[in-house]
Parts: sequence; C-alpha cells; structure tokens
Amino acid sequence: MSDAPKVAPRLAGGLPEWQPGQQRLFNQMLDTIRVGYERCGFTPIDTPALELTEVLLAKGGGENDQAVFSVTGDEQLTLRFDLTVPLARYVAQYSNKLAFPFRRHHEAKVWRAEKPQRGRFREFYQCDFDIIGANSHWYDAEIPAVIDTVFRMLDVGGYLIKINNRKLLNGFLASIGIDPLQFEEVLRQIDKMGKQDLAVISGALLNLGLDEEQITRLFGFVEIAGSDSEIFEQLQALDIGDEQFQTGLTELHDVCQAVAKFGVSPDSYCVDLSIARGLGYYTGTVYETFLEGFESVGSVCSGGRFDNLASYYTDIQLPGVGASIGLTRLFWQLLQAERLAVPTPTPSQVMVAIMGDGSIPYALEIANTLRSQLINTEVYLDPKVGLGKQLRYASRQDIPLVIICGPDEIATDSCTVRNLNSGEQQTISKEAVMLTIHINRQLGRDPG
Amino acid sequence: MSDAPKVAPRLAGGLPEWQPGQQRLFNQMLDTIRVGYERCGFTPIDTPALELTEVLLAKGGGENDQAVFSVTGDEQLTLRFDLTVPLARYVAQYSNKLAFPFRRHHEAKVWRAEKPQRGRFREFYQCDFDIIGANSHWYDAEIPAVIDTVFRMLDVGGYLIKINNRKLLNGFLASIGIDPLQFEEVLRQIDKMGKQDLAVISGALLNLGLDEEQITRLFGFVEIAGSDSEIFEQLQALDIGDEQFQTGLTELHDVCQAVAKFGVSPDSYCVDLSIARGLGYYTGTVYETFLEGFESVGSVCSGGRFDNLASYYTDIQLPGVGASIGLTRLFWQLLQAERLAVPTPTPSQVMVAIMGDGSIPYALEIANTLRSQLINTEVYLDPKVGLGKQLRYASRQDIPLVIICGPDEIATDSCTVRNLNSGEQQTISKEAVMLTIHINRQLGRDPG
Repeated sequence: MSDAPKVAPRLAGGLPEWQPGQQRLFNQMLDTIRVGYERCGFTPIDTPALELTEVLLAKGGGENDQAVFSVTGDEQLTLRFDLTVPLARYVAQYSNKLAFPFRRHHEAKVWRAEKPQRGRFREFYQCDFDIIGANSHWYDAEIPAVIDTVFRMLDVGGYLIKINNRKLLNGFLASIGIDPLQFEEVLRQIDKMGKQDLAVISGALLNLGLDEEQITRLFGFVEIAGSDSEIFEQLQALDIGDEQFQTGLTELHDVCQAVAKFGVSPDSYCVDLSIARGLGYYTGTVYETFLEGFESVGSVCSGGRFDNLASYYTDIQLPGVGASIGLTRLFWQLLQAERLAVPTPTPSQVMVAIMGDGSIPYALEIANTLRSQLINTEVYLDPKVGLGKQLRYASRQDIPLVIICGPDEIATDSCTVRNLNSGEQQTISKEAVMLTIHINRQLGRDPG
Repeated sequence: MSDAPKVAPRLAGGLPEWQPGQQRLFNQMLDTIRVGYERCGFTPIDTPALELTEVLLAKGGGENDQAVFSVTGDEQLTLRFDLTVPLARYVAQYSNKLAFPFRRHHEAKVWRAEKPQRGRFREFYQCDFDIIGANSHWYDAEIPAVIDTVFRMLDVGGYLIKINNRKLLNGFLASIGIDPLQFEEVLRQIDKMGKQDLAVISGALLNLGLDEEQITRLFGFVEIAGSDSEIFEQLQALDIGDEQFQTGLTELHDVCQAVAKFGVSPDSYCVDLSIARGLGYYTGTVYETFLEGFESVGSVCSGGRFDNLASYYTDIQLPGVGASIGLTRLFWQLLQAERLAVPTPTPSQVMVAIMGDGSIPYALEIANTLRSQLINTEVYLDPKVGLGKQLRYASRQDIPLVIICGPDEIATDSCTVRNLNSGEQQTISKEAVMLTIHINRQLGRDPG
C-alpha cells in the first residue's frame, strides 16, 4: 500500500483548520458563547447542514444571492449558507410544538461558495441567537444586552455595538425621492461606507439612478454624528414627515433607552446611521459590533429584526430579532493579531511516566485515581521508550506535571511528582487522598 | 412577500433534527463524551467538512466504497464520510508540528449519500478518539478503557465491548486455504453474522469461491465461545502454525490481559471471534460495543488498529488505534426506546414575569442578579401579555421557578417567587444575597 504514489495531504483554500492548542482555545470560546446564550435562556437547536434547495432558497434576493454549494445526489440538496433561513424553516415546521417567544441559539458551520482569499472563509462557524415571536421593542433591546454579556465573558477586549433602524433608513430614502424598489440596492452601498472610498460608493449610487443632490443628502444623513441624544436631536430637526421615518425614529429611540435598562454600559453601544445590513429580511432594528482595535475588519456580531422571515413557509406571523457572532473570522483575526493566549496543545494536566512494562499497571492505578478526581491524565504507554524521551514529550506538550513510577517508587508505594515549570520534584505517597491533595496544590486548583 | 405561494417547510429524508428538549439532552451527551475523552488526555481537532476529493478518496476500497456527497464548485470538493481519513490527512500534513503519540478526539458530522431509511442517516455525528504513533499493545488496551470510562459517564445502561484481532482472522483464513486477496470480502460477510441468516452468508461465501468445508470451518471458528480463557484454550488447541495467526493470537491475548489492568470490569469486555470490522484499514485489534437490550441494532462504538492509515499521504510510519461512537444513531435508538429522560425544552431555570412596561427595568435588575450567580434566567418582555399567559408559557416550558414583579413587589423592594412544580409561592426581598440564597434553595442547588 505504502508504495503507491503519495497524494499531498492538503486542504482546499478558504477552509480553516487549527493546531491543537488553537483548537482548544476555539472550543473554549465556543463553549463560553453557548454558556452565555443559555444564561439568558436561549435553548439549543441543531439543524442539518444539508437542506432541500427549494426550501433553502425559497426567499429570493438578499443573502440568498450568496453563492451556495449544492451537492450531487438523488435530491436537490444544498449546504446552508447561514443559520437564519434554517431557523425560519424550523419554526415554521414545528410551530405547533414550540412555545413562543422561542429563544434559540445555534453554533454551527455554514458554507459559501465564494472565491477563497485571506481571512475570507468558505466554511465557518456562526453562533446565532434569536427570539422568534418577539412582540415588543424590549426584545430588540435584549439583543445588545446578550451581545454585551457574551463579549464580557469572552474577554477579548473592548467592543462597540452600533444600532440603527431600517424603517428610519427606508423612510429617509423615501423622503429624498428614492424608489422603494431600489432601497435594498442603495442600502447595500451604504453598508460599504467606511470600507470603500466614498467616490466609489457615490459612483455606484449614480449608476442606480440617484442624482447628485440625493447622494449628498444621503451621505449627510448617514454621517450624522454625536452622542445618542445629539443624534436624536438632529434627526428630529430634519423634520421629515414620512411615516416610516417617524416609526423608525421612535423605535430606535425606544430601543436605545431600553438597552440602558438592561445594564449595558453607555460606552458599549451607540446609534450609527450608517449601519444598514444589506440583507433583504431585516425590517427594523439592525446591529453591528466592532472590536476595539479591529474596527477595519468589520462587524464581528451582526443582526436585526425580521418580521416576515418565515412568511415563505407559513401564514403564521413569526416576528423575530437576533444576531450572530462570526466566530471563525473573529478567532482568526484575534489569532493573527496575537491577542489570544493560546493554551497548551493537550488537555492533559498530568502525564504518568513509566519505567518498563512492569510499571504500567502501577501507573494506570495512579491515572485512575487522578481521573476520578476530575484531573485530566494520560499515561505514556510505550515501555520501549526511555524516561528522557517521555519527559521531552511532556515538555513539548506543555503538560505541567509528570508523575514518575520507577522501581523505587513501586517498592515504597510512592510516586515522584515533577513540576515541569518549576523543575521541582517530590516523592510522595501513592495513597489516593494524599496524591490528590498534592496534585491539586501543584496545579493551583482548589481541591473543592 | 407573504402572499407568494408557500414552500412546505420540511427536510429531505435521512437528515435528523431534534426538538429543543431532545437537543439539550443530545448536547449533554456530546459534552460528556468530550469531557470523558479529555479526562484521558485526548485533545480536540476540528477539520473542515469539505475535503479535496483527491485527498479524501486517496485510499481505494474499504470505507471509501461508501457513497459520498460531492459539491458543485470550482474545485473537486467532497463532504467527509468519516473522521478517520481526515485524521490521517491531518497528521500527515502537520507531522512536523505535532507531538507523538498524538491523542486526538473529534466530534462532528459526517455525510453518506445512502438511501435514507428508518434509523439510517445521511448526516450524523461521529465521536472519534484515536492515538497516532501508538507503538505498544497497551494503547490497544486503552481503547476499551476509554470506551468504558465514557459509557459509564454517559450512564445509558450496561454495555459489552467485544474485542478481536484481524491478524488472527487473516491467519485463520490463510490456514484454511483462502486467497489473501479475498480476505476483505470474506470478512465483510463475517461482519454480517448475527444480523443476517447464516444461509445467506453461506451463499455469499460460496459465490466468493469458498467450498463447503472452508465455510463450515470458518463458521466453526467464529462461533468459538466461552470465557476469554476458554476461548484462548480452544484457539491454542486448533494448533494452527500460520505466523499471522500466532501473532494475532498473542496480540489478542496480551491486549485482553492489559484491559484488565486499566480497571475495566470483566463484565464489560470479552473476546468475540466474529467481530471483523469490514474496513480495509484495520490491521490488528478490532472493537465493537453493544448496549444491553440493544444488541440487535449493532455496535454503538467501533474501532481498531490501523498501521498504514496515513501511508497514502506520507512515508512516515504513523500506526494508530482508536474508536468512534456513532452518537446520532445511539441517541436515536435510546430515544425510540424511551430510555432517556428528556430534560426541559429550555435551559432557563427562572423566568421573571412582568406586569406592564413599568415593571420591566425592575425585572431586568433581578435577572441580572441571578445571571451573575450563574442561574439561567429569562425575562418575559412583552408588556401587552397578561400574567396568566406568561405563567402558561413558563409552565409549558417546564421552567421550575417564576419570579413575579408587580406593583406591590416594586413598592416594597421585593419579589414573589412561585415554584411551578409545588405551587408554593413566597414573597422575598429583592436584595441580591437573599434572593440568590432563596432561588438556589428552590432549585436544590448548592449555593457554593
């Protein structure tokens, strides 16, 4: 077999994969997000990666314009491109089984058939939380509160949650005479502000048929700045009578007032009129989240209110609001910036070293004692490998403690504990209670 | 939008999905498996679901005969059909970065383009653990020990880990004059014993060119029964000189002796000569695990030793041994049999009920207090919904405690805690320490 020509072991572009220490950190972040969502009462769901193409792409336009991966087979199956459309399908399918408001979280991979480029992935994790059947602005305000809770738990530095409202934007566009059919296209251009040259965006808007004056007024509008109360004052002063505009203004104002009641620090959120979220399904509040020092990479947690998401599947009204952390991208950015403390490449806290075949049963007893005390433990199980090489392995793996079981130790019912960080070494009794106390102390663990 | 013809919200066949309470249980089992693997020093990896077809299918035969899902796109990408081939690719690709023995675990979905049928899934979770660079029979013995650890933690009833050895089987086949090129085909028939009629298997073996006498001897061999020591006595008594047979016999004997040293109860494992694992890549010890009362559904955790798995990618020798829990299938079976206690459909331990818009800030304060004490809490945030409907929602969600914040409570800085299980209700101070003590007591939690 091994004489056959080799296939180079490699991945296609845009498919991220991590080394073990990095992966442990990624998993810790994922677990933190799950715990944070559940702390706020969101329940997990896990839908299939493969959905019927007809169902997945029921909704025209919007994010569905994303290139998707279809699969070969006897049915028209497509890999999901987000977790929002599968959620809409899920709540429509089980609407009679679920209790509303339905608060769900979902952390899973999604796929997009894009051209791979640096930092742009074709397979990545999204970590979504949404409330379906959310009939008050308090739910809109809860979204930044949950983002705030989770990002505090993630402890990856400062962040700013920017809030806007699609009705306000649409109302403004109407007030300057833009055709409602063009709102979505125009908002997609707005989304590019801060990422692309104004001249380019301006050109694109001209191409859409906007005139110079409309563009100037639009730019002036989205650039309204100041404290939230200053922004609201300026918006009032515009004196725009459009009904949608007024509804959006009230919603945005109420939501921001409510966010404060959730205990979110005023430093962590603000109104930003340039946040548009170019997705067809948003109908009210929209959110983007920027990490301090990483503003240029774009939003790491985005979302909004969608009042008609499940309308392609059911007549039941299921208004929802939620957001999604793009964890793969966030993780990759933080890793690139060396802002993360990558843990050891193994969960093992203790390695039991052996000296010959005969010492293995003794080593296994010790390992079982430690594992029963919830201490992650591995035993080096190759009796042909000498102690020096075993220690080098432990050192390379950054395992903090090595327990040595040689003939002397076995003869005296003891074991030698070496701290690979300090170099200290001590021979102690093998008796379970003594051993556990010693190891917990060395690991700096509360013996509970 | 909502006037458009509806698309029926549904999934294609063979793609499992659970209701929230079930999903919470599934996640708990998945977490238990992860914790169990890490307790034994296995580190997590997470490879892309999409691999280059050329890499994924480098190895001919064996499990690669599985129908796979390819995806449309600019490259030849295929959804992985197991986690073992991606592991081989991973260790070959990063062999200079990893420390060996490399102990990894991986819980993720795999896809198979099979015809969907009841209990047979096209997308399902595998939970793998393997040791790569495992150069002693002690590692073979560790696999049943890890299975034992994890299944004890899963607490899903009794189980029996059956152990055999491919060299022993191959050696026996050679000793009765079967062509080595046919070993794999013959072993696949052996795999069907207990699941299919002996007559059908017999017919298939005749078709492969075996004669009646060979078939009789083969059936006689795999049906050798008794205690492990009785089986080893009978194997010795066969007096087969074939070198592979003798090597396999020694390995199987040594591994079984070693499993005992790991502390695995003799009731939980045994030799079974009919376990063949029809996959091309196994070269030594093989394992299958049967759940008490579910023997007919087949193995819930299988694996073996593979000495050449990465040989399609690299010349470096990377012998490995491991096993995989088929969690989706296991979970589905246990669910069907109603052997699982499905938890509440929400992680919320407390719901804070409100009485009108004005009570919401007060309710949010209480929720923040509880969340800071690690108590999963949600607030009912629609002020238009009356208390009765809020309580019915909490009851339907099986949330154990509801905290009511009405005008009386707000006026006296208190809150009313209702236990929905007992019906008891008590008005207590809203002060954080008192509230936390009371809620923890109601939840039966150690306030730590």
